[in-house]
Amino acid sequence: MGVIVQKYGGTSVANIERIQNVAKRVAKTYDQGNDVVVILSAMAGVTDNLIEMAGQITDRPERREMDVLLATGEQTTAALLAMTLISMKYPAQSLLGYQAEVRTDCSYGNARIQKVGAGRIKELVEDRKIVVVAGFQGIDPAGNITTLGRGGSDTSAVAIAAAINADMCEIYTDVDGVYTTDPNICSKARKMNRITFDEMLEMASLGAKVLQIRSVEFAKKYNVPVHVRSSFSEEEGTMVVNEYTDMERLVVSGITCSKNDARILVKGVPDQPGIAAKVLTPISDAGIVVDIIIQSSPRNGTNDIAFTVPKTEYDRAMEIEQKVAEEIGAKEVQGDKGIAKVSVVGVGMKNHAGVAAKMFSTLAAENINIRMISTSEIHISCVITEKYAELAVRSLHTAFGLDKE
Amino acid sequence: MGVIVQKYGGTSVANIERIQNVAKRVAKTYDQGNDVVVILSAMAGVTDNLIEMAGQITDRPERREMDVLLATGEQTTAALLAMTLISMKYPAQSLLGYQAEVRTDCSYGNARIQKVGAGRIKELVEDRKIVVVAGFQGIDPAGNITTLGRGGSDTSAVAIAAAINADMCEIYTDVDGVYTTDPNICSKARKMNRITFDEMLEMASLGAKVLQIRSVEFAKKYNVPVHVRSSFSEEEGTMVVNEYTDMERLVVSGITCSKNDARILVKGVPDQPGIAAKVLTPISDAGIVVDIIIQSSPRNGTNDIAFTVPKTEYDRAMEIEQKVAEEIGAKEVQGDKGIAKVSVVGVGMKNHAGVAAKMFSTLAAENINIRMISTSEIHISCVITEKYAELAVRSLHTAFGLDKE
Repeated sequence: MGVIVQKYGGTSVANIERIQNVAKRVAKTYDQGNDVVVILSAMAGVTDNLIEMAGQITDRPERREMDVLLATGEQTTAALLAMTLISMKYPAQSLLGYQAEVRTDCSYGNARIQKVGAGRIKELVEDRKIVVVAGFQGIDPAGNITTLGRGGSDTSAVAIAAAINADMCEIYTDVDGVYTTDPNICSKARKMNRITFDEMLEMASLGAKVLQIRSVEFAKKYNVPVHVRSSFSEEEGTMVVNEYTDMERLVVSGITCSKNDARILVKGVPDQPGIAAKVLTPISDAGIVVDIIIQSSPRNGTNDIAFTVPKTEYDRAMEIEQKVAEEIGAKEVQGDKGIAKVSVVGVGMKNHAGVAAKMFSTLAAENINIRMISTSEIHISCVITEKYAELAVRSLHTAFGLDKE
Repeated sequence: MGVIVQKYGGTSVANIERIQNVAKRVAKTYDQGNDVVVILSAMAGVTDNLIEMAGQITDRPERREMDVLLATGEQTTAALLAMTLISMKYPAQSLLGYQAEVRTDCSYGNARIQKVGAGRIKELVEDRKIVVVAGFQGIDPAGNITTLGRGGSDTSAVAIAAAINADMCEIYTDVDGVYTTDPNICSKARKMNRITFDEMLEMASLGAKVLQIRSVEFAKKYNVPVHVRSSFSEEEGTMVVNEYTDMERLVVSGITCSKNDARILVKGVPDQPGIAAKVLTPISDAGIVVDIIIQSSPRNGTNDIAFTVPKTEYDRAMEIEQKVAEEIGAKEVQGDKGIAKVSVVGVGMKNHAGVAAKMFSTLAAENINIRMISTSEIHISCVITEKYAELAVRSLHTAFGLDKE
C-alpha cells in the first residue's frame, strides 16, 4: 500500500474501450489499498489532428493559442476516465493542469515545469479520491495555458509523483519496458529489469523513445522510482532506479540508434583562433541545436569542421553555412542527410577501458566506416552511413553480450 | 466606434473556412476603430459528438466531468479563431471561461452566471487586443469548470457585454434575425427590425429558438442592446431593445409554436382543499417542470386537473401520476403526446382588449379545438391537437396582420 502515480500514454487511451481497460487497472490498484493519481495523454492521433487543423490556418500557428488548442486533448481523456471510474462507483475527479497547479515557465509548446503545487491533489487523495490529471499541460505565471512538448505527460507524471512524494511512478505505454536496443532492429534485444537514471537519460537523448528525457531528469533529481510497463499486460516492465546493486551491473547496458540528424562539413576553413565560433554561432543564433562537433587537425593552414543538426533543420543550416563559408573564405560546404548515429550506453563503462576499442573493432569487422565519434562518461557514439545502421546495432548488441539467451 | 461584443454560433464556426470568414468579419469591425470581444460556440456537431462519446461509457455521465469534457469544444474554436486573427496580423488572444472570470454557481450542465470579473478582458481591450472568449463555460466558486446549458454562449456574450459595458452585443447565427413566426411553417413570416426584451423572452420561452432565454433576461436586466443577425450576410438583423418607439408598436408582434410538451389529465380528483398540491408536488419533487396547469370547476364533488410536461419526461410523469391517482382516489389518468402549443406574443396586447377573442375565433374558423389556454400580460397560448399546429400558426399570422406585403 502506498501512493501510486500511473501515467497512461496515447495508445493506452486511444478509444472508449481502452479507457475502460485503464479504469479497471486503476480500480484494481485502488482496491489494493493504494492511493492512486492518474496522469493521461491525449487519445492517440488527437494531438496530430489538432496540429493538422491549425496547419490549415497557417504554417506557423501562434504558440500561445496552439497550446490552448492542444490542451483540449488531455482534457478530453481526463474527463472521460474520471467519468468511467465514477460510473464504476469509484470516487474519481479530474484536474486540469491549472487546477493541479502544474506551474511552468512561459515557453509555449515546450514549457518546463517549475513547481507543482500539490495541495489540491493531496487533499483529494486524503479523501480517498482517485485523481485524474490531464498530462502535458500546465499554467505559466500569468495564468496562460502551456504545454510541455512531445512526451510531456511523462514529465507531468514524474513531477506530480515528486510533489506528492509518491512511492512509485508507473509509466504505462505500448511497449513492455526498456530494451537493450530497438527490438524492431534486433530480434535478440532483451527487456531490461532495471536501468539507472543516467543510462536512461543517455538512452533517451540518443534516440530511444520510451520516456521524455525531461521526465528522467526530474526522476533523477527528486529520486522518484519509475516503472516503465505495458498497459496491455500484467507483466513487470523496467524499473528506472538511482543505482544498481553490484550484482546487476553490466559494462554496457544498451545500444541506441538515431537517424534524426544530418551532417554538415565545412572544408578548408582558415586555421585562425575563434574560427570555430564563426562557423557555429550563426547556427545557434538561428535556434538550431547542434549535436556532435568535430574539428580536424590543421593541414596547410586550413581545418575541416563537421557537425550534425536535426534533419528538419538541414536546409536552413546549409543555407547559413554557405553564407558563412563565403565570409570566412572556406573552401566548400558539404552536406549529408544519409547518416545514422549508433551508440553504446552503460554506467559500467566509466571504469572499464576497452569499450571504445571493442566498438570500433566490431564496426571495422563489418566494414563499416566511422565518420564521427563522440563520447561521454557513459556513452560512445559513432556516426556512420545510414544504410549500415541496423547491421551496426545487431553486431554491437552481440559483441557486448546483450543478446537474450 | 465603440466596444462591440460579437457572438458566433456553432454553424458560423463549423469548419476552418467558416472560422476564417468570422475572422474577416471581426477584423473589419476592428479596422473600423471598434474594440472587439468575440464569444464563440463549439463547432456545429462537436458538442453532440462529445455527448455521444460519454454515452458510450454510461447512460448517466457524472455532471462535473461532463462539463470538463464539453468545455473542450469552445476551447478549440477560441484557440483556432485567435490563431487565425494572429496569422492575419491582428493582435488577438483567447481566454477560457476561468481566464475571463465567468463566475457561475455550481449547477453543472446548467450553471447560471453570477458575475463576470471583467478585469482581464478590459485590460486586453485597452491594449487594443481582440479578445476571443470561449463561450458556454464558466468556473464555480471552488474552481471547477461549469457549462451554461444549450445555447449558453448567448448568455456568455450578453453577460460579458454587460460586464464591460459594451455598446452593442451582436449575436451572429445562421438565420438573419427574429421572425414574426417560424418561416419554415409560414412562408409569409416577416423579419422584425426590432423586438423588445419582454417579447423576446416570451418568444424564447414559447418555442422560438433564436436566443437562449437566459441571455435575454440578462440583456433586459443590464439593458444590453442585442443585435441578432446572420454571419453569412451583411444585412441588418433584428435589434432587441428595451422599448419601442410608439410608431413601431404593433398589438401582436409574433406567433410561436412548440411541440415539446405532452399533456397529462387526472380525471375525477376529489374536490378537497390542497388536492392540486397532492397531484403536482410529486411531479416537481421529481424535477419535472410543469408548464400549463388547468383545474376544471368541480362537478359531482370531483375535479379534473390537466397539466403539460416536457415530452421527454412524459413516461416518468405518467408513472408518478398513476401512483398519485391511486393514493388520492382519482378516477383515471389520461396522457396525450400529440399536442402543440400555439401562442401570440406582443407588448401591445397589454392595452388592447380583443386579442384573445380574435385568437379564439380565428382558430374556431379553422375548426381547431382549443384544449388548454394560458395567458400572461404579453402572450396568449392555446394547446391544440398537434396536427393542426402549422395551420393555426398561418391563420393567426394572417389574422393579426403580420404577413409580409
